[in-house]
Amino acid sequence: MTLPIPSGTRDVLPEEMRERHAVVAALRELFDTHGYGEVATPMVEYASVLDHAGLAAVGDDATRPRFRTVDERGETLALRTDMTVPIARLVGSRFADAELPIRLSYVAHCYRGVRPGRGESRELLQAGIELCGAPGPDGVAEALTVLVGALDAVGLPGARVAVGDASLFPALLDAVGIVGSARAAVMHELATRDMVGLEREVRAAADEVTATMLLEIASRRGEPALLDEIADDRANAALAGLRELVAKLDQDVASRLILDLGLTRKLGYYTGAVFEVYAPGQGHAIGGGGRYDDLLGTFGRPLPAVGFALDVDALHTALVGTSRGTWRVGWTGAADRDGKVGS
Amino acid sequence: MTLPIPSGTRDVLPEEMRERHAVVAALRELFDTHGYGEVATPMVEYASVLDHAGLAAVGDDATRPRFRTVDERGETLALRTDMTVPIARLVGSRFADAELPIRLSYVAHCYRGVRPGRGESRELLQAGIELCGAPGPDGVAEALTVLVGALDAVGLPGARVAVGDASLFPALLDAVGIVGSARAAVMHELATRDMVGLEREVRAAADEVTATMLLEIASRRGEPALLDEIADDRANAALAGLRELVAKLDQDVASRLILDLGLTRKLGYYTGAVFEVYAPGQGHAIGGGGRYDDLLGTFGRPLPAVGFALDVDALHTALVGTSRGTWRVGWTGAADRDGKVGS
Repeated sequence: MTLPIPSGTRDVLPEEMRERHAVVAALRELFDTHGYGEVATPMVEYASVLDHAGLAAVGDDATRPRFRTVDERGETLALRTDMTVPIARLVGSRFADAELPIRLSYVAHCYRGVRPGRGESRELLQAGIELCGAPGPDGVAEALTVLVGALDAVGLPGARVAVGDASLFPALLDAVGIVGSARAAVMHELATRDMVGLEREVRAAADEVTATMLLEIASRRGEPALLDEIADDRANAALAGLRELVAKLDQDVASRLILDLGLTRKLGYYTGAVFEVYAPGQGHAIGGGGRYDDLLGTFGRPLPAVGFALDVDALHTALVGTSRGTWRVGWTGAADRDGKVGS
Repeated sequence: MTLPIPSGTRDVLPEEMRERHAVVAALRELFDTHGYGEVATPMVEYASVLDHAGLAAVGDDATRPRFRTVDERGETLALRTDMTVPIARLVGSRFADAELPIRLSYVAHCYRGVRPGRGESRELLQAGIELCGAPGPDGVAEALTVLVGALDAVGLPGARVAVGDASLFPALLDAVGIVGSARAAVMHELATRDMVGLEREVRAAADEVTATMLLEIASRRGEPALLDEIADDRANAALAGLRELVAKLDQDVASRLILDLGLTRKLGYYTGAVFEVYAPGQGHAIGGGGRYDDLLGTFGRPLPAVGFALDVDALHTALVGTSRGTWRVGWTGAADRDGKVGS
């Protein structure tokens, strides 16, 4: 019998559920170890609250609340697309007087629109943290430490975290005098990672030396030591934030990072460091995050904040792919008497 | 700052989350012990699939899929209102050739419409089982054994399970010749538990002896031994199913039941035994279920089935109310080294 389910969703059968539980248990334990208290928020929020966050998606509307309906009183409700905005609401209401920093974690389903035929997920199970009220590089260093710990905890020591700075290109474009619509066009091509489009827009807006410098910065990826190889003074001034961050990191965390100077993220609320997580054999990011210093203020508690979310099912896929049947080895989740993992 | 959330939803803060996790861990372990494999299904389903189940709610539309939207292709999607219908779909597709009986469990959020001002939950976290392909009283006895075990596992030995039979009054009304609109009116008053309305409809439709018998049966609640006190032959014939069920039960399970001969449930798919779970100090049912022998056939695999769902947050509230701060005692969920419970 043909019983379709919506594209971008799926059923999870018992064997995979046990494995998913083990991933989730390892993440929960790690978040708890670092002092992050887990919260849950409603799957449905007033659309006005989600929109209020100014979730200006750049170049892609998949992250805007897509699933909308009207409640019994005529108010528009929407399914959340991530947990960062609901937790910002929570910090502005239930944690309005809490001592800083506020450390919160979650394991929660989120919902996004899909573009037909691209195999995108409409329903995501995300696990992550939000660190609110820890400013500057110290806060980012803590979030990256927890993130690398989480990848170790689930058994993905080969995963790498690409780190960029959402404020880098705005600062660089200020420094070289690219403004207005030319600036918007450059930022759009960066956000969509269209290197051909980026070259076109940069060369139209700047002299050859400046354009070459901008394109070189946008394409530089590698170990943190690459920061020592940048010659241009304007670039070096804009890279001060990343340099300060790298100096704060433990060596074992830094060794898991790949600096990606052209990295921005599609979500409009990031203001500083941005992260994307990659695992061996996985063609797209299995997690991401960054610093968002302006979002909490829109919910009444102006605080710097940083966080990340991991896609639990993508982690699971990466684990299965990584170790070919022995992927449970290395998990911190305890095995029970029958040798099964998970809670 | 005022940051409203939709009525009938709520935020859960870290302390309560830890307690909720402990409840869920205890239930998962118990379901696993009885051989029930956990599954997950998408929160959103095609509305046509949910409607296809013929979810004819009696006297109340809160259990109909309320939260609807339209996807990128113009198809109507809806948030599930329970897990019984999605699991019936799953059994008809992914378990089409599975050996019988099929034992499945879940811990999942479900969404219902709310009536303003009644304090109803729009978002429920349900934990439960479905037993497919185990016919007759044996299947119901297994489900009740797991249900009582689940109440013990979370630490609610004082909870009681009201058990009725959705086929009892249809059989009785057949036996006494109440048909057509009179029969529909009686069934409606029973489903909404309106004893005044029931008396009016029964007295209008039957002679005095018959009406008195029907009203007595509808109001009888008590230990299983009450079945021995029924004098009317027509009633005794209709009570054969409940009698057979009680004979199958272990004494410790039977001692936790309250037979409720007037019990029906609002969901239209129940065909035999029906359950409602009550905990001390809680004014309404904290769970329920029953036998639904016709639902799976509508999804292509005609099988008798029985299941139940517990409201996790209502269980938690009952636990907090029951033992005034020492409610963790008696839980089967393991305490970790720091004395915290849950995963």
